[in-house]
Amino acid sequence: MTLAVRYTAARTLDTAPVEPSEPGPGEVLLAPAYVGICGTDLHIFHGDMDARVAAPAVLGHEMAGRVVKVGAGVEGWRPGDAVTVMPLAWDGTCPACRAGNSHICQNLDFIGIDSPGAMQQRWTVPADTLIRLPDSLALDKAALVEPTAVAVHDVGRAGVRAGERVVVVGGGPVGILIALVARAAGAEVRVVELSAHRRKLAEESGLVTWDPAAEDVVEAAWEWTGGAGADVAFEVSGAAAGVDTAVEVLGVRGRLCLVAIHPRPREINLHRFFWRELTLVGARLYDRTDFERAVELVADGTIPAERLISKVVPLTEAPAAFEALEGGGDVMKILVDCTSDTEGASA
Amino acid sequence: MTLAVRYTAARTLDTAPVEPSEPGPGEVLLAPAYVGICGTDLHIFHGDMDARVAAPAVLGHEMAGRVVKVGAGVEGWRPGDAVTVMPLAWDGTCPACRAGNSHICQNLDFIGIDSPGAMQQRWTVPADTLIRLPDSLALDKAALVEPTAVAVHDVGRAGVRAGERVVVVGGGPVGILIALVARAAGAEVRVVELSAHRRKLAEESGLVTWDPAAEDVVEAAWEWTGGAGADVAFEVSGAAAGVDTAVEVLGVRGRLCLVAIHPRPREINLHRFFWRELTLVGARLYDRTDFERAVELVADGTIPAERLISKVVPLTEAPAAFEALEGGGDVMKILVDCTSDTEGASA
Repeated sequence: MTLAVRYTAARTLDTAPVEPSEPGPGEVLLAPAYVGICGTDLHIFHGDMDARVAAPAVLGHEMAGRVVKVGAGVEGWRPGDAVTVMPLAWDGTCPACRAGNSHICQNLDFIGIDSPGAMQQRWTVPADTLIRLPDSLALDKAALVEPTAVAVHDVGRAGVRAGERVVVVGGGPVGILIALVARAAGAEVRVVELSAHRRKLAEESGLVTWDPAAEDVVEAAWEWTGGAGADVAFEVSGAAAGVDTAVEVLGVRGRLCLVAIHPRPREINLHRFFWRELTLVGARLYDRTDFERAVELVADGTIPAERLISKVVPLTEAPAAFEALEGGGDVMKILVDCTSDTEGASA
Repeated sequence: MTLAVRYTAARTLDTAPVEPSEPGPGEVLLAPAYVGICGTDLHIFHGDMDARVAAPAVLGHEMAGRVVKVGAGVEGWRPGDAVTVMPLAWDGTCPACRAGNSHICQNLDFIGIDSPGAMQQRWTVPADTLIRLPDSLALDKAALVEPTAVAVHDVGRAGVRAGERVVVVGGGPVGILIALVARAAGAEVRVVELSAHRRKLAEESGLVTWDPAAEDVVEAAWEWTGGAGADVAFEVSGAAAGVDTAVEVLGVRGRLCLVAIHPRPREINLHRFFWRELTLVGARLYDRTDFERAVELVADGTIPAERLISKVVPLTEAPAAFEALEGGGDVMKILVDCTSDTEGASA
């Protein structure tokens, strides 16, 4: 038996022994080393996704670890290989897949939500989800590859080009990663964030921030761009006010990339979209090229992973870490160390 | 003195003699022949644009006519030349102009709103607004070039490609023109329209229509596309329900082109934009290439102008025509014939 962090009911997690499944044909058994706690995991924890998540459910999809065993017919992977997982399984037959957008397959299985996730000591996944990690990259840092792939995808969807001016509304983990990826693409970037702790972290990573409680961010953006308005805005806050800000900072033909989840409809100033010929583009998940680029960016230090990892907790303390994140506070990314407690593990 | 149709106050138009201005350097004096009444002209008539329009104001920007006289330094134009006008004067120096988007110049002078329009017997405009018309094209039909240029621009902004499935929400003049231009680009098109008269006109032009009062248009779209959803939707209705329809018919990576004016913010299902990676793109006005393409489409009969022109009224009856349009009814496009009453004209 090996240990797993399980969502059992709203606001309730446990760690429980589970029977690791043998890798079937085309599958690989992994030993997750570090697994990040994502905003989506918190949504599940809150009970907001009970319609989709069948409890008890093993959470986690931001991971790095090693191959333990490969199933029949799996080629190119050996025990010990360092990997991360692109946690998507598509059907390959729906209209989205046929149009080449399998990452948003209409019947997508997101591994870690729709099927068991990585927050456990052994994890069986399809071999085609594996992404190779360079030996030089520490596995704790590599747990940031998945959210970095989100950021790479978002920056790509927005079509950020060198020299463009970009406003990122929301400076949580994904917002900061977007800002760093956009900067690496040659853009000038401003991060709008209320939390002083998060602004400080962004600034320590060389980013310039604006505090919307202290200044008129829209005015600041127009001044910064000499009256032209920003080329691109990313809405990563999930707040109604964040949407307004992202629309209002944009200049003519500006692009708003929608990253955050807004469960309820939002009022949008469509006249502005008409008048300035703005574009709104939704961005969700990533594809393999995004992941491969993310590995490069984490490995070469473009993403200062050590700064963004606030804390590493052993697997048995994951439930407490969820409670702590729940309360907000001064944290960016918390990792669960799945190697820390092998009690009960028998691989 | 020559006659002009003037907006003098909310719901009040007159026809009054005005002194035609001599064409200055770089200007051309035109004799408008036919001028279409546009939705924007109706907005002005309603008094909705009083903050922008200085009464008395000569309306009209959908025109065809002939050159009467050219000012100093104007080359390439001679009296008698058949022309339409792209009614835009930009400053050339604002950030939008510098970025190559002069059609949405931040200080745009839209001729016919911000400065005197075409609904008069003589009209002086900058020579660089002229678009040449082929001799073979009747001037009444050519009055549809301007709204067709809008449609060309919209179809271009949406990036419609051959074989794509397109839903046009709103079958007024611009909606039908968009449908016809999209079809000419090789798309399959459905037009959503409440008015039986407009649906009939669309169908007589070979378009397939859906009546949202009689069927579930979203369901129809999903059935039509075999569960894939539409590739492109155009929101041309200006109604909140139209926006919802345009969002809901789109498949993965679908593009919603926003054409209608929505003065008030609208509630938008942003989650759908995220989930399906939809794009919303604002489209406003046109540029010279759009106009030149529109001339071709009207001239070669792709746009069945004779069907879309419901009525031609003499200039002196333009105020009554505005009143009639106000009441809705079974009309598509009404043209004002500026040549019909030369009483008082002395060119």
